[in-house]
Formats: sequence, C-alpha cells, structure tokens
Amino acid sequence: MTDPAPPNHPQHPAPSTSEGPAAPEGAEVVVPDGAGGERPLRAVALGGGHGLQATLAALSRLTPDVTGVVTVADDGGSSGRLRRELGMLPPGDLRKALTALAAPDDGGRMWAEVFAHRFGGNGALAGHAVGNLLLAGLLDVLGDPVQVLEHAARLIGARGRVLPMSTEPLDMEAEVVGLDSDPEAVRAIRGQVAIASTPGKVRKVRLAAVDGDWRTPTACPDAVRAVQEADVVLLGPGSWFTSVLPHLLVPELHEALVRTPARRVVVLNLIPQPGETAGFSPEQHLDVLSQHAPRLRIDAVLADTGSTPTPDRLRAAAAELGAQTLLDKVASPGEPGRHDPEALAASLAAALERRD
Amino acid sequence: MTDPAPPNHPQHPAPSTSEGPAAPEGAEVVVPDGAGGERPLRAVALGGGHGLQATLAALSRLTPDVTGVVTVADDGGSSGRLRRELGMLPPGDLRKALTALAAPDDGGRMWAEVFAHRFGGNGALAGHAVGNLLLAGLLDVLGDPVQVLEHAARLIGARGRVLPMSTEPLDMEAEVVGLDSDPEAVRAIRGQVAIASTPGKVRKVRLAAVDGDWRTPTACPDAVRAVQEADVVLLGPGSWFTSVLPHLLVPELHEALVRTPARRVVVLNLIPQPGETAGFSPEQHLDVLSQHAPRLRIDAVLADTGSTPTPDRLRAAAAELGAQTLLDKVASPGEPGRHDPEALAASLAAALERRD
Repeated sequence: MTDPAPPNHPQHPAPSTSEGPAAPEGAEVVVPDGAGGERPLRAVALGGGHGLQATLAALSRLTPDVTGVVTVADDGGSSGRLRRELGMLPPGDLRKALTALAAPDDGGRMWAEVFAHRFGGNGALAGHAVGNLLLAGLLDVLGDPVQVLEHAARLIGARGRVLPMSTEPLDMEAEVVGLDSDPEAVRAIRGQVAIASTPGKVRKVRLAAVDGDWRTPTACPDAVRAVQEADVVLLGPGSWFTSVLPHLLVPELHEALVRTPARRVVVLNLIPQPGETAGFSPEQHLDVLSQHAPRLRIDAVLADTGSTPTPDRLRAAAAELGAQTLLDKVASPGEPGRHDPEALAASLAAALERRD
Repeated sequence: MTDPAPPNHPQHPAPSTSEGPAAPEGAEVVVPDGAGGERPLRAVALGGGHGLQATLAALSRLTPDVTGVVTVADDGGSSGRLRRELGMLPPGDLRKALTALAAPDDGGRMWAEVFAHRFGGNGALAGHAVGNLLLAGLLDVLGDPVQVLEHAARLIGARGRVLPMSTEPLDMEAEVVGLDSDPEAVRAIRGQVAIASTPGKVRKVRLAAVDGDWRTPTACPDAVRAVQEADVVLLGPGSWFTSVLPHLLVPELHEALVRTPARRVVVLNLIPQPGETAGFSPEQHLDVLSQHAPRLRIDAVLADTGSTPTPDRLRAAAAELGAQTLLDKVASPGEPGRHDPEALAASLAAALERRD
C-alpha cells in the first residue's frame, strides 16, 4: 500500500538538456567512488522557504544526488492553518523544496505550478496552496513524512529528494531585546512568525517539540544520515533565525553537521531580513551562527559581491570559523534579494573545485 | 505546460493478473476492427457515485478502453462546498469514477486511498476528500476539465478515462408530488441533494446551466464522441433521478445515446433509493427512463435475480423499450445495495456475447 516505488510511477530519466533548469552538458560534478571510478556528488542543502529553493535549484544543476532538509517550525499562513487544524508537519516549506527540484519538462512544470497554486476567493480554502493540501492528505493517510515526500517527489518528477529535519512539528522561542523601555530587557517571543517579524533584536533561538511540555526535538534519521554521507553540505541562505539556525537546534542534526566529512558551505543572504536580521552585516550572520554552534567548522562562506560592504571584515569572521571566503555575483538580476540559481551553481562548482 | 502526456508520467503498463481487480487471463472482450483484425471493446458507462464505480470496475475487467461519463449536478457535501466556494465543477463523482479505474498495483491503490480520504477534525477542511481538493486545484490552474481528468487519471494509473457530461456545473430541478395536503399538487424542488432526499414522489427532472437565468446545458464534446464511437453503452445503476437520468437531459448527449450504433445496456438498481425512488419497482425505473427519453431504444436490461420480485413484469417493461431482460446474481455478498464488480463483469460479458 505504501511502497514508495511502485512500478507505475517510475523514477524520472535524466533531465533533458534542452530545457532551462537542466544542467548544461558536462556541468555535472563527480567525485571518486573509492573503487577507482567516479560517482555523482552527494549534496545536502539545509534551510526553508525561498532560500532553500535557491540552493536546491542550484545544486540540481550540478548533481542528481541532491537532498533538501527542511525546517518544520513554521506556524504561519496555509502551513500554520493546516498544522493547527490537523496537528501535522507544516507542509509549506516541504512543498517549496519539492517544486525547486521539479522535473524540467511539461509534467514537472505543470505539477510544480499546481503545487504552488493558492485558492482565491474568500471561503474556507482561500490562501491554501494546493500542494500543502495534497501533502496534508498524504500525511493523514500514510503517517510517515519520509514516505509522503517520496510519493510527492515522484509525482512532481523531482531530481533529488526532500526530507523534514524532524518528523514532528516543532516550535520556536527566541530571546529578544529592544521591546521594552529597558533596552537590555530580554523577552521570550514564541512562534516562527512572531520571531521573523519582531521589531526587537533577536539574540538567540531555541527549538522544541511541544506536547504539553517543551522537550528536546528529535531529528529525522534519514536527514541525519544524508548529512553524514554527504560530500557537500549547504547552510543558508534564508531567514537566519527561523529557517537556517533551526537545523543546528536539533541535537542529532547538530552533531551530524559538526562531524560530517562533507565540505561545509555557508551561503549568505543578499539583504538583511526585515524583522529578524534587520541591520545585520554579513559577518554578524556568521557570529550568530557560531554562537548557536561553537563547535561547527565551516569550509567556505559564499557571499554576493554586491551585498558585502566590508569584505575584509567578512573574511576575518569567516576565518574564525575556519572558512575561506568566496565573493561572487550570485544575485538574481530580476528578483531583488533572490539568488540566481545558474550563477549560484557556477559559484558552488568553483567552491567545490577549490577543495582539491 | 498542460500537455497531458509528458514523458515522465507514462501510461501504466497492463494491469498485473496477480491482483484482485485485474482481469483474469483471457477475459478481455474484443470486437472486429473492420480491417480483418480485432481491437478491444470500446465501453462507455454513464452515471455518478457508487453506481458508476461499480460499472467502471466491472468494465475495466473486460477491456482497457473504458470511459466513464459523470454527472456534474451535485450540490452536496465536499463537492457542493467546493462548487459554491470556487464556482467549479463538483469534483466528487469525477473522483469516485477515477478511483474505480485505479491501477491494481501499490501505487494505484495508494493514490486511490488518498483521493478518497476525508479530512477529520472540526476545522475548515473537515469532510473534504483529498481527491476533491486536488481536482479543484487542477481545475483552478488548467481550466479545462478534460485535461484535468487526464492528469489525475495518469496519477492514479487509471485503466481508462473519465469525462464530465458537461464542462460546466449544472443544476437540477424536479417536479415532486405528495408534499402537500393535496396529493396531486406539484412542487418544483431544486438541487440534487434536495431531490435525492425528498419525502415526496419525483415525477420528472430537468437540468440546466445556471448563470443568472436557466439555460439549456451543453455536453462535453469528448463525452458525446465517446458515446458515438462506443461498442457498448451502460446506463445505471445509481440514484435514478439524480445520477442516471441527468445524462438524458443534456440534449447533445441525449441525441448521441439515441443514435449511437453501440449496444445500449441498462443496469438496474438492487434496492430502491430511499427518497427519490422509494417504493419504485424495477419496471417503474424503466418507465421513468422512457418518459424522459421516449426515442431511446435499449438492447438489454440487466437486473439482479434477488432484486426482481416480478420478473414477468420487468420483461414486459423491457420489451417495450426493445430490450432483452437478463437476470443474474450481481449483488455484492458483503455490501447490501452494491453490485459485485466481478459478477457484474461476468454478466455483462454474457450480455455482450448474446449480441452475436
């Protein structure tokens, strides 16, 4: 009933090279397979929302072996409504990651459009994304989110897979200052939406599974394994406190990130996020990363040239984490604040070459 | 974007013969192809709800070339809510027809289960079938219901296709007596749910497209063509006034049914429907059919032996329509009021053999 690989829903063939999002000939990155041959690069990107869409779209240009690991602490919009109504994983960021990996053919594009489509009007469904409702239905029937995401990935022809960072919905709490007349007074702000939009300054976030009491969240075992077995792991870009750092707040995932033999690459945001990182410099992003994961070493920090006002300071902050700094033009010319997948892919390929 | 046959969503292979719903070896019905060879039987079943599910499940045991033509006048439940909220075709009966044709493998069964699954709880989604929401999303994005049903059929691995009788939502009105102290007083009752559950006696139904004024409904051209090109056309079983007769109330579909060279088979219900056909005998079902379509000739009437208290009267009523009467054991042993697809398939095969 729940076999994720029925014969009638076969894996996609290699993506066509005639279509936009497909890899150009020869762009694929391979690594030694340990037996004298080569195999495709194993890449893992951790994040949520549009940032993760950008890294997944970029990585799928370099290798068919891509895994997106997605935050599950969202409590806003269509996801928040489904989570509250049905007690399930918030599906929105999972859906966005899936559509970023959709096959670059008519079928993949059609399903990606349907997944992203939101019902209009002013009724009970208004604002719900169709893909969220489908994921909710699959979760209700199958239970296991990993299986659900395999079925949805097959439907959309995903080149790669998507995993939740935890198989249970999680909640966030942040220490925020600047909300009171006393500028040092610390308040606990709860919920991803509240944290992302706080007018205060976020100092620290924590994450918990909530069932009566707060308890330590458990990681999705497949996500931990993906990080352990990766050749390259990407953190960011994205909402720093609410999409990127949460991955470091799940203890098993934190440990896997610290210990993986993979090359660890941090991709910085193009613009500070209004609310949670308003006024943050690129180097401050690295500082809070380090505060939340003091043992985490980074191999490379990738930043957009135009978004780095003080390159020397960024290089110094990166060096403290053990990282080289790569400045490149990776911003989308058309969409301010968004990475261009093609440029990001080229920049990542260059970063990976420097390893050898 | 909307090509219904992208390379990554291939047609299903022939159904496995090791699974329940698949046709046993050699059960397939073929007809002369006009060029000295043979081709699979072209079968069309018209109806809605559980009755159409039974005929589609039976026909798919006999031929891969099955078309279900589905009423679109439903205004109740999840379908009615979606229709009112989004102004689209009521998807419920379309979904049920699709699941009746689902591939008999793990993937087909899983998607059929997900399509039929209804959200629980007490929120905005409670009671909505997941398949209805997916069809609503596809309709919102693609517009054309025929394309939508092709994509959904491919997803579920349907052996055959499903078409709406009209591409616009329709409304019903019935002349009902017995609702007033004057037993002959005629009232107009509007809406499929109201008609199906009336405590009065339904005399006649009519169907209309509603956009301000009532106007004559137009048929889905593919449904008309399917009837014209069929070898066999099935009417019933199902809610007689609200699922079976509506097909005769769309002028182009009515004309196609009257003129088709196909063998016309009426499959009678096992038990009268509480409300709309309470107390109706099998022969009364044929009488109202004839009243709504005086020019329609029938080749065979198939009825369950145990549901036919007066076989001679049924034979007489059938003969008036030009039809042979076939009495057979076609009731499901487990589900009262439902046809057994296997038994119905065997009975239909026998009915088709008598043609030659």
